[in-house]
Amino acid sequence: MPNMKIAVIGGDGTGPEVTAEALKVMDAVAKLEGFTIDKTEFGFGGDHYLKTGEILPEGAVDELKKFDAIYLGAVGHPDVAPGILEKGLLLQLRFQLDQYINLRPVKLYPGVETPLQGKTPEDIDFVVVRENTEDLYAGIGGFLKKGSADEVATQTAIYSRKGCERWLRWAFEYTQKRNNPKGKKLTLVAKTNVLTYGHDLIWRTFQEVAKDYQDVEPDYNHVDACCMWMVKNPEYYDVIATTNMFGDIITDLGGIIQGGMGVAAGGNINPDAGGTSMYEPMGGSAPKYTGKNVINPIAAISAGAMLLEHTGQPAAGARVMKAIQTVTGTKMKSQSAGKMGYSTTEVGDLVVDALS
Amino acid sequence: MPNMKIAVIGGDGTGPEVTAEALKVMDAVAKLEGFTIDKTEFGFGGDHYLKTGEILPEGAVDELKKFDAIYLGAVGHPDVAPGILEKGLLLQLRFQLDQYINLRPVKLYPGVETPLQGKTPEDIDFVVVRENTEDLYAGIGGFLKKGSADEVATQTAIYSRKGCERWLRWAFEYTQKRNNPKGKKLTLVAKTNVLTYGHDLIWRTFQEVAKDYQDVEPDYNHVDACCMWMVKNPEYYDVIATTNMFGDIITDLGGIIQGGMGVAAGGNINPDAGGTSMYEPMGGSAPKYTGKNVINPIAAISAGAMLLEHTGQPAAGARVMKAIQTVTGTKMKSQSAGKMGYSTTEVGDLVVDALS
Ligand SMILES: CC(C)[C@H](C(=O)O)[C@@H](O)C(=O)O
Ligand SMILES: CC(C)[C@H](C(=O)O)[C@@H](O)C(=O)O
Repeated sequence: MPNMKIAVIGGDGTGPEVTAEALKVMDAVAKLEGFTIDKTEFGFGGDHYLKTGEILPEGAVDELKKFDAIYLGAVGHPDVAPGILEKGLLLQLRFQLDQYINLRPVKLYPGVETPLQGKTPEDIDFVVVRENTEDLYAGIGGFLKKGSADEVATQTAIYSRKGCERWLRWAFEYTQKRNNPKGKKLTLVAKTNVLTYGHDLIWRTFQEVAKDYQDVEPDYNHVDACCMWMVKNPEYYDVIATTNMFGDIITDLGGIIQGGMGVAAGGNINPDAGGTSMYEPMGGSAPKYTGKNVINPIAAISAGAMLLEHTGQPAAGARVMKAIQTVTGTKMKSQSAGKMGYSTTEVGDLVVDALS
Repeated sequence: MPNMKIAVIGGDGTGPEVTAEALKVMDAVAKLEGFTIDKTEFGFGGDHYLKTGEILPEGAVDELKKFDAIYLGAVGHPDVAPGILEKGLLLQLRFQLDQYINLRPVKLYPGVETPLQGKTPEDIDFVVVRENTEDLYAGIGGFLKKGSADEVATQTAIYSRKGCERWLRWAFEYTQKRNNPKGKKLTLVAKTNVLTYGHDLIWRTFQEVAKDYQDVEPDYNHVDACCMWMVKNPEYYDVIATTNMFGDIITDLGGIIQGGMGVAAGGNINPDAGGTSMYEPMGGSAPKYTGKNVINPIAAISAGAMLLEHTGQPAAGARVMKAIQTVTGTKMKSQSAGKMGYSTTEVGDLVVDALS
């Protein structure tokens, strides 16, 4: 019986609660599909930081590399300044583990409410492939005459040919495999008319890589137009490839049109041989709801399904995705916290039941 | 009788058609309010560029500075590579005339359809104050080993204390004057947790300037969260201050939730003594509809109302805004092209009629 070894970082606030539901479902599907999941918990997050002053202890990254994948609940603690844990943990792991793909499906599950008028699960079903290691996230910049009336500050976006190519190639391959019956289309979302250096490199790379994928229609949208289009005509999209910064923005927009943070999940993927990937629900740690058993775990369970799909158990992943949709389509009234009609743990149980 | 002198750049495609409706309404309201508008047309745009190879002729900017304001229809020509005219004309004028405020009201007019479920004109009524001369729009960047497998490209966002301060001060003052009965709130939209240099300067400036406006509630959203919130809870916002790049993105999102490009307008404002400002509908030149008399001129007429409001004729501006809402609320079925129930010129006539 094959065995999967995962590292679990439940994190802060309601992170551990939704993580528990994801793990419950993953264990159940593993049993049905004939494999096991070894879980090792890492107590990183706000409490650990407040106690020790460290976010990722010495050696933690090397330790995490030994696992087949990482499951992350949520980070963000009321007593820690905003941004500290997100940067020290989430962004650090993305960079240090070179997880250069941030995969964010935008899918309206049956039964889930979208804020968009008249849109159905058929209309809202696309995937964003966000680059995850370059761009404005490089942390490059500085100040001149800091604090004075003449202060100037810079922030530099940096892109490499290698970084663009590996990300775009992956996006084309993903589009090919996704094999959308409506037509395979990869839309690059950028701002070539203004970012005439950085996005020129992306644009040239996109055109070259496209030649190797003749069955995929290469397409382009400016980021501003894309935001309009996602709201007006989400059915236009199949797969979107976009930069780190724009991906941050449009995937939150994607998250809300698919019903909100209670359902949106993402994968931080290093697809190279030996790479370690990390899966997370997109919502925050919602500290004020800690222990109340009211947070929607669908996003967390979807993150678990993605983990399985991309860690050698695609059948198990698909089975969980199907169970989620059975539950949202038949049992749950709506996916927002407090309105979902069931407690966090009950939703986990419903998904387990729907597996078989 | 006071006299207003404006420069008119009708531009490409359907730009001149919608401009004609805006001017018709402006002339009509001027008559009612007892002033006149002198109009001087400038034939800049795609045709001029194709004939002469120049976008803004030598001396054009100095010429334009002599006017009280500029009215711009639309630029973008099918035979000119995308971006050339937008950069050579629109961005050039914004920069050369130092129009550091890009003012974009997001207002759902009565009768106009929004793609958001259950939202009314009361819910969608806020204003975005986009900085218009700094950030990634500075055009700074470069390439290393261009064309090689090791190529690296950079694109630098640059911000100055002076630039941040004048923009944020204007935004606070605007919020004060807007005097929202629900409470005066200015939300800064940025990404301080990732852009730790550039947006740190903005954040520090915001906090300092806020002290001078004690009656305005200073508020902050990350740009990703703002996109979610604009769709889920647009009623949360009163005034938003944001950077050039993020403003580009969120105002297109704003444009779609207020009913689309047929209704959204913006002002590129230099509020300093002697400054020259430019007003434009947000839609493009829609070349394939040229001469068909089908484009919704409401956005263009709103741009005219903004011009009047900010060029010493606020009563005339308000009168046009009221007439627009009378027309959308009672006559027009929907604001999208082809569905509006009237031709371009008929809509202009309806607004003229509604003025008195
Ligand atoms: C928490 C933050 C640093 C992060 C990002 O900006 O990438 C988040 O918004 C996300 O999208 O995962
Ligand atoms: C045409 C383009 C350069 C411009 C911009 O990016 O500012 C447009 O999108 C806008 O928002 O006015």
